[in-house]
Amino acid sequence: MAGSPIILAIDGPLSGSCEAAARLPLQLDDIVSGAKVGVPFLLRCGVGSLAAMRSSYGGLIVADLKLADVGDVMLSTVSAVKDFVDAVIAHSFIGYSGALDELSEGLRGWGLKLVLVASMSHPGSQEVYDGSLGQLLKVISKARPWGVVAPATRPNVISAVRAALGSEVKVLSPGVGAQGARPGDALCAGADYEIVGRSITSGPDPRAAAEEVARQQAEALRVCRRGMA
Amino acid sequence: MAGSPIILAIDGPLSGSCEAAARLPLQLDDIVSGAKVGVPFLLRCGVGSLAAMRSSYGGLIVADLKLADVGDVMLSTVSAVKDFVDAVIAHSFIGYSGALDELSEGLRGWGLKLVLVASMSHPGSQEVYDGSLGQLLKVISKARPWGVVAPATRPNVISAVRAALGSEVKVLSPGVGAQGARPGDALCAGADYEIVGRSITSGPDPRAAAEEVARQQAEALRVCRRGMA
Repeated sequence: MAGSPIILAIDGPLSGSCEAAARLPLQLDDIVSGAKVGVPFLLRCGVGSLAAMRSSYGGLIVADLKLADVGDVMLSTVSAVKDFVDAVIAHSFIGYSGALDELSEGLRGWGLKLVLVASMSHPGSQEVYDGSLGQLLKVISKARPWGVVAPATRPNVISAVRAALGSEVKVLSPGVGAQGARPGDALCAGADYEIVGRSITSGPDPRAAAEEVARQQAEALRVCRRGMA
Repeated sequence: MAGSPIILAIDGPLSGSCEAAARLPLQLDDIVSGAKVGVPFLLRCGVGSLAAMRSSYGGLIVADLKLADVGDVMLSTVSAVKDFVDAVIAHSFIGYSGALDELSEGLRGWGLKLVLVASMSHPGSQEVYDGSLGQLLKVISKARPWGVVAPATRPNVISAVRAALGSEVKVLSPGVGAQGARPGDALCAGADYEIVGRSITSGPDPRAAAEEVARQQAEALRVCRRGMA
């Protein structure tokens, strides 16, 4: 089960404790492939808690800043966390010129990976975001990110991203568990990682919950790969 | 010059000092109408510095979180700062259902104002964001925000926002100074406030710089109102 394609989402303190949240990725290191830290965690626990996570955990740490600002403000935001993370998530709808061009260049200089949102997991994503998918994929192609976020709740978007951007870009899929997709659904549609938060972090036994997600992923992949064979 | 329609943007520490940044709104209280605090300030200085600003400054404080996530994550982010601010900025691009519906209801419960981005001040805003303006204005109408962000660099967007949303919504315009618009340009196009950061905060004398912006605003308004008379 080691290295299951799970990115553990930590959106805030766990049971009120920032220390517990910062320790969890290390505790699940044999099951998950990385951790994603949200803005609520950063504001409530402070950048110091992220530094503590980094000092104990050698896996992938993604800062889910959902950056959506002009270039220099985004870079100023990232500079506050750049020593403690491997990758940063930004929105693609802000466009390239004066925004993602500056961000991608800055991240390259710091040795950080760029991850761009192509679509989101909630119903409202279909109101504006998804109608612009064609233009967003053009923006994403220009910014040449390491990874793209596409929702597990809409596998057709995952397929469209994969078709437009090729096999090298990593596809990270939120929306598994609390938001409705089953573990493995996004992997079967072409995602590289499933982002799982509350189904692991909100219960009394995160390890057992993570193992169960990994088991369901493996089972789903076995079934969908058999269907394709 | 008291109460000039300036919202002071504080995007990070000033000359490396979080204390100086937190004190500035009070020091310019007779010139500016409010302060806007960005994510770089919150990550570098911590929520404690925002609390210090709130305890000394009674004017409008806007948390420029550029929220662009699913509803519960945005509410979790806001809950970390809700006791120290009057208003919160979110993107309209994320849509209503499962995002801005939950955010606007939550903010109402906390007595906070919602401000939605309709367009941005950098060139890349024209790549995707501005092409969706019609749909974005529908989303904004549904969310019924207190204010809308529209860039001073594109007065036609300010006019479109005002035409679609009426006279009650407050229009806040960034892009003045470093990003190219002159003080007063956005006010003449229908904005209520101009958001000014670096032209005030980056020099050696923020008070003199703020007074100069206010003087230019008054002069521009005098000229454009005469043109309309």
